[in-house]
Amino acid sequence: MRYWWVNHNQTAKQEVGNGYLWSPVREANGARSQFYENMRIAAPGDWVLSFANSFIGHVGIVQDQARITPKPESFGSVGVYWANQGWLLPVWWKPLAEPVRPKANLKTIASLLPSKYSPLNPSTGNGNQKAYLAEVSKDLVDVLLGLPNSLLTAPIAELLPATASIQSADDLVEKSLTEDPALDTTVKLQSVLARRGQGLFRARVAQIEQACRITGVTTPNLLIASHIKPWRACASAAERLDGANGLMLTPHIDRLFDDGLISFKADGEVLISKRFCKIDADRLGVQDALHKGCGGFTDAQAHYLNFHQTYVFW
Amino acid sequence: MRYWWVNHNQTAKQEVGNGYLWSPVREANGARSQFYENMRIAAPGDWVLSFANSFIGHVGIVQDQARITPKPESFGSVGVYWANQGWLLPVWWKPLAEPVRPKANLKTIASLLPSKYSPLNPSTGNGNQKAYLAEVSKDLVDVLLGLPNSLLTAPIAELLPATASIQSADDLVEKSLTEDPALDTTVKLQSVLARRGQGLFRARVAQIEQACRITGVTTPNLLIASHIKPWRACASAAERLDGANGLMLTPHIDRLFDDGLISFKADGEVLISKRFCKIDADRLGVQDALHKGCGGFTDAQAHYLNFHQTYVFW
Repeated sequence: MRYWWVNHNQTAKQEVGNGYLWSPVREANGARSQFYENMRIAAPGDWVLSFANSFIGHVGIVQDQARITPKPESFGSVGVYWANQGWLLPVWWKPLAEPVRPKANLKTIASLLPSKYSPLNPSTGNGNQKAYLAEVSKDLVDVLLGLPNSLLTAPIAELLPATASIQSADDLVEKSLTEDPALDTTVKLQSVLARRGQGLFRARVAQIEQACRITGVTTPNLLIASHIKPWRACASAAERLDGANGLMLTPHIDRLFDDGLISFKADGEVLISKRFCKIDADRLGVQDALHKGCGGFTDAQAHYLNFHQTYVFW
Repeated sequence: MRYWWVNHNQTAKQEVGNGYLWSPVREANGARSQFYENMRIAAPGDWVLSFANSFIGHVGIVQDQARITPKPESFGSVGVYWANQGWLLPVWWKPLAEPVRPKANLKTIASLLPSKYSPLNPSTGNGNQKAYLAEVSKDLVDVLLGLPNSLLTAPIAELLPATASIQSADDLVEKSLTEDPALDTTVKLQSVLARRGQGLFRARVAQIEQACRITGVTTPNLLIASHIKPWRACASAAERLDGANGLMLTPHIDRLFDDGLISFKADGEVLISKRFCKIDADRLGVQDALHKGCGGFTDAQAHYLNFHQTYVFW
């Protein structure tokens, strides 16, 4: 379990209000940023301190891994210079009874701030302009929030589905798609069906792939037409409905592939994430596939698999 | 593949219009009916002739197995004497260019009608009052529709998701639930979340079940909180949110359990449906479980498992 600190800047209200964090993949000039890479390192159960307007007003628990999604519509004109694709990290937020002003305790906390990628300037106590999601120590969190701390044991009735914010990101994509005047009715219908692996997309994938690449299962009812480049990340209806952008997978393999716990190389090598519990990988017969491979892919499939390895597999 | 004939009586419009067949489980007096039992025998890919007002006007392809659902709202006052739970069988319907009147060809078809459970009286050519879904021979279908017959090769663009009618049945249950003035807001929210195995229901199941009964997987992200008695068939919010009415299952096991291809006895014996392809059962490691068992269940769980074996397992 890790502890994080986010400098929301202008998007605190949208992010806390809707239960997530969102960042671009890279800086506007194309450079890598550790603060954005951290979005992919954060894992379910991690804590996040929300810092905005010089106060920590909320503490959150990460609910799911980050997914590649379009920029939230609610950001409006904020971050117009950001690329439209970025990481959405689902977070369950709880307001602090009394917001904490780190600057007021600067003496105590300065030495607890990370020496690299600090969210706060240790001399001034102001937020570091370039920072977004920064890793901090448990010690810092304990000092800031006070001990003992039972803030984050949510009453069960408050537990929201972990994927609510991802679903609502998908809903927005669907909405913009159905409202697009450039698409005809059939394409709209089929693009929406494709979200659930149904309709034309499934029929096209089934022409290319007849069996699950890992289990070998062929019963149609037990196979899901799964997008390689995620539906929500597709740039066009053509990508959403491209048979080469799909695999027929058994439901648990679909889940592993979608969660980025496994991926496939063009030559049929099976990749297994470090994050995938080895014992469970063995229980699901995935370790075997590591040795046997899953058969090669076409160039068109390899193109989408490349996206999967970059933005989904982790 | 089998061929069926349905005497819709008063519900032709609703059933053909919405892409399904619906029948009660038993007759109003509680007696078994072969015409209703046939709803569970029909399987994806089977053909159905739709007979109403003395004409065959549509031919359909069964899209999915029958599920236990409440009576469709659109039936209105039709069949008020039926029990509220019955079989919904998803069917993709295509209108015949020219409807066929079986009575006009009675001489030719009389000898092709089944001797038992016939949909039509072979002497009069009128529909058999008691009949609903009757099995007929390929010969009868060929004679009625004419040969060669390519009526049922649907253009891909017309393919609707196999589960659309089941989903819309679930949507109706959700609607009646959220409009129920007797339920408070929290119960409504949690009942809706339970449909997807989320929220309070999941938390309660997780207190009782920590690992998948078949695979032994324990990673929370890879486990689905699956209802034993299906969500749509639950009689109350209490049943929908009862932790004893759930199992934590890996996604493919959840699918098999939900589709009624596997079930569990109270003593932990694993049941595998005749309909489950043995080769695929082996590929998914389910054949092993047949010998090892899956561990016993509590009385409260056994109560729900009994429903599963009667109405879901087939």
